[in-house]
Amino acid sequence: MNKVKGIRLASVAAGIKQNGKDDLVLIECGENSHVSGVFTQNAFCAAPVIVARKHLNTSPIRYLLINSGNANAGTGEQGLQAAEQSCQALAALQKVQPQQVLPFSTGVIGQQLPVEKIEQALPGLIVRLDENNWDQAAKGIMTTDTVAKKVSETITIDGKTITINGICKGAGMIQPNMATMLAYIATDAAIEQKDLDTLLNKAVAQSFNRITVDGDTSTNDACMLIASGETKKLDSQHPHWQGFEQKVIEVLKALAQMIIRDAEGATKFITIEVKQGFDEQECLQVAYTVAHSPLVKTAFYASDANWGRILAAVGRSGLKNLDINKVSLYLDAVCLIKNGQPAPDYTEEAGQAVMQQHDICVSIELGRGKAKQTVWTSDLSHEYVTINAEYRT
Amino acid sequence: MNKVKGIRLASVAAGIKQNGKDDLVLIECGENSHVSGVFTQNAFCAAPVIVARKHLNTSPIRYLLINSGNANAGTGEQGLQAAEQSCQALAALQKVQPQQVLPFSTGVIGQQLPVEKIEQALPGLIVRLDENNWDQAAKGIMTTDTVAKKVSETITIDGKTITINGICKGAGMIQPNMATMLAYIATDAAIEQKDLDTLLNKAVAQSFNRITVDGDTSTNDACMLIASGETKKLDSQHPHWQGFEQKVIEVLKALAQMIIRDAEGATKFITIEVKQGFDEQECLQVAYTVAHSPLVKTAFYASDANWGRILAAVGRSGLKNLDINKVSLYLDAVCLIKNGQPAPDYTEEAGQAVMQQHDICVSIELGRGKAKQTVWTSDLSHEYVTINAEYRT
Repeated sequence: MNKVKGIRLASVAAGIKQNGKDDLVLIECGENSHVSGVFTQNAFCAAPVIVARKHLNTSPIRYLLINSGNANAGTGEQGLQAAEQSCQALAALQKVQPQQVLPFSTGVIGQQLPVEKIEQALPGLIVRLDENNWDQAAKGIMTTDTVAKKVSETITIDGKTITINGICKGAGMIQPNMATMLAYIATDAAIEQKDLDTLLNKAVAQSFNRITVDGDTSTNDACMLIASGETKKLDSQHPHWQGFEQKVIEVLKALAQMIIRDAEGATKFITIEVKQGFDEQECLQVAYTVAHSPLVKTAFYASDANWGRILAAVGRSGLKNLDINKVSLYLDAVCLIKNGQPAPDYTEEAGQAVMQQHDICVSIELGRGKAKQTVWTSDLSHEYVTINAEYRT
Repeated sequence: MNKVKGIRLASVAAGIKQNGKDDLVLIECGENSHVSGVFTQNAFCAAPVIVARKHLNTSPIRYLLINSGNANAGTGEQGLQAAEQSCQALAALQKVQPQQVLPFSTGVIGQQLPVEKIEQALPGLIVRLDENNWDQAAKGIMTTDTVAKKVSETITIDGKTITINGICKGAGMIQPNMATMLAYIATDAAIEQKDLDTLLNKAVAQSFNRITVDGDTSTNDACMLIASGETKKLDSQHPHWQGFEQKVIEVLKALAQMIIRDAEGATKFITIEVKQGFDEQECLQVAYTVAHSPLVKTAFYASDANWGRILAAVGRSGLKNLDINKVSLYLDAVCLIKNGQPAPDYTEEAGQAVMQQHDICVSIELGRGKAKQTVWTSDLSHEYVTINAEYRT
């Protein structure tokens, strides 16, 4: 991966994961950085989310401290203290304020964070800080992920090359509104806080908030965007802002789709497009009902063109006054249902041929408006059950 | 099972199922009968549901004709004609109006109903009509069910014994608001239409509309209550009406719980109680979010007291202003979370002991009101994936 000027990273094994793999990652942001973040909307948000939200609004952020293997969620008052304590320990070593450190955790819920292991590992972590450690950081934040997820893009504006790097983790408990998912995107452009916040929200809405594995939203998810300010100054009035914005969205979308491709037990990558809705909200409602249906997901796993299950999911998605005689359904370019009736030239073979593919696009036309939305999801396999039944054993 | 005076039943193999098992069932109601019904709320309701709804409102019902193996759903105009045609064929043979026949189908969605097979089987079906055929009828309506589901109860009022029998089928695609579920309950009491309708709606709300396997609502589900009028006359003003009503509710509840116990791949029977809610609606919202969470369901499958997943599901259920510091969580009598904090005397062993059981009760206290609701569900196992991945093969 390219370097992002002003951003250094490090990763070590602090002994939080039982398998001895790296489980503690540090991201250092240079003094000119601005940091923007969005967090889980789960009412039971984890201790580090509460602390990170509080710190983000008070001080210029210099460090992001991330542990994997333990979510520090459902841990009550003791968990909050542990999150604060890890920030304090790092701040003392690096001579910054504790509020300048953001803590993140991902892993098993409901076990107290072994904060002493983090404290012991910090000196070794700090000495490893380096601009070249993006790959190591991507590995260090993994839990049930099978591959490290990372993207690096550049864009040249006014003769200056700006880098945008992103890493993320997540494979299950993935749902709209941030899931068991941590994502860190950094650019060396200089961007003021307000523009940075707007950019992040826009990019998340088109990427991480459009993917779902199992409908479960985690207590810990966060997506952070860092602008280190070391290269080119940009703002939303700049003539090339839109090109830059699009590049950032591409990075987030690529990361989000990597999560679905690595979804727990996934054997398929499913795109669900809902078109011709009254508004985006109802398009999403239909798309997520289809994406979450265990029956639809097992049919994808079986490569079975059991489109009746897709129709049944559309029908129960709760749209008022849905006229089924205007609904059409496609698998890739193959029309299965046209205006509520079985398509006359549809053949089981044609449907089956699409279902055998690894990447499948389901298109649903509602015939009641001009809005459209797309979400990405995976199938439901034996492996999903195995992974989630055996997670803690 | 006991007989229900005025109700005769028959079952044959018409060749709709490929395995040669019974797939066509006829229920005959005597001339004094009243019939009440509730149907799926899926916008894509199957052809027989459209026809049955229409017939039920126009004529005194004499016959219920049920096929398994083919849902006659997603079959367009041709499917509607097939449903009407099967009613006409039976009506011609029995010299009643076609509107006095209600059609029902359950099985694979999206294949045309082989109505000629039904027509050919009707004479053989009619000669088998007998008051003693409840067991055969319970078997004949099965699809992925592994056991026939039947209940028989009696109640003596004013010295007269009234019988209430029920049969049903359903193992997957089970969700609130009727699912891939057909249920037929008959009593020999005489009850007027209005009281019968009220009774059915009340009983369904406490039974079939409180169970969920996978959140998928079918296109075909129906629950019918028949009062043949051959024994005691009853109405809602009768001093023993409440006792009778309770008996009917018990029959429906027993049938509904049999569906969960036979749920596709189920290895556990989970009761989810949500208490101290503002209103019943939000209690149900929390209960179903927990019941549908694939992560919660796989934890039950693994007998893993991974209560963090339950809390995460409560937290994402969408309740406004949920104060997590008032939420408590129990597995049977074991308290895991008290007022948002880990219960001090909770041990992993105590939680694990409950999770090892076949029947488990999850109690969630929201600490914001007096409403409560209970739903019943199953776990998510390898077997569920296998059954639903291989259903059409």
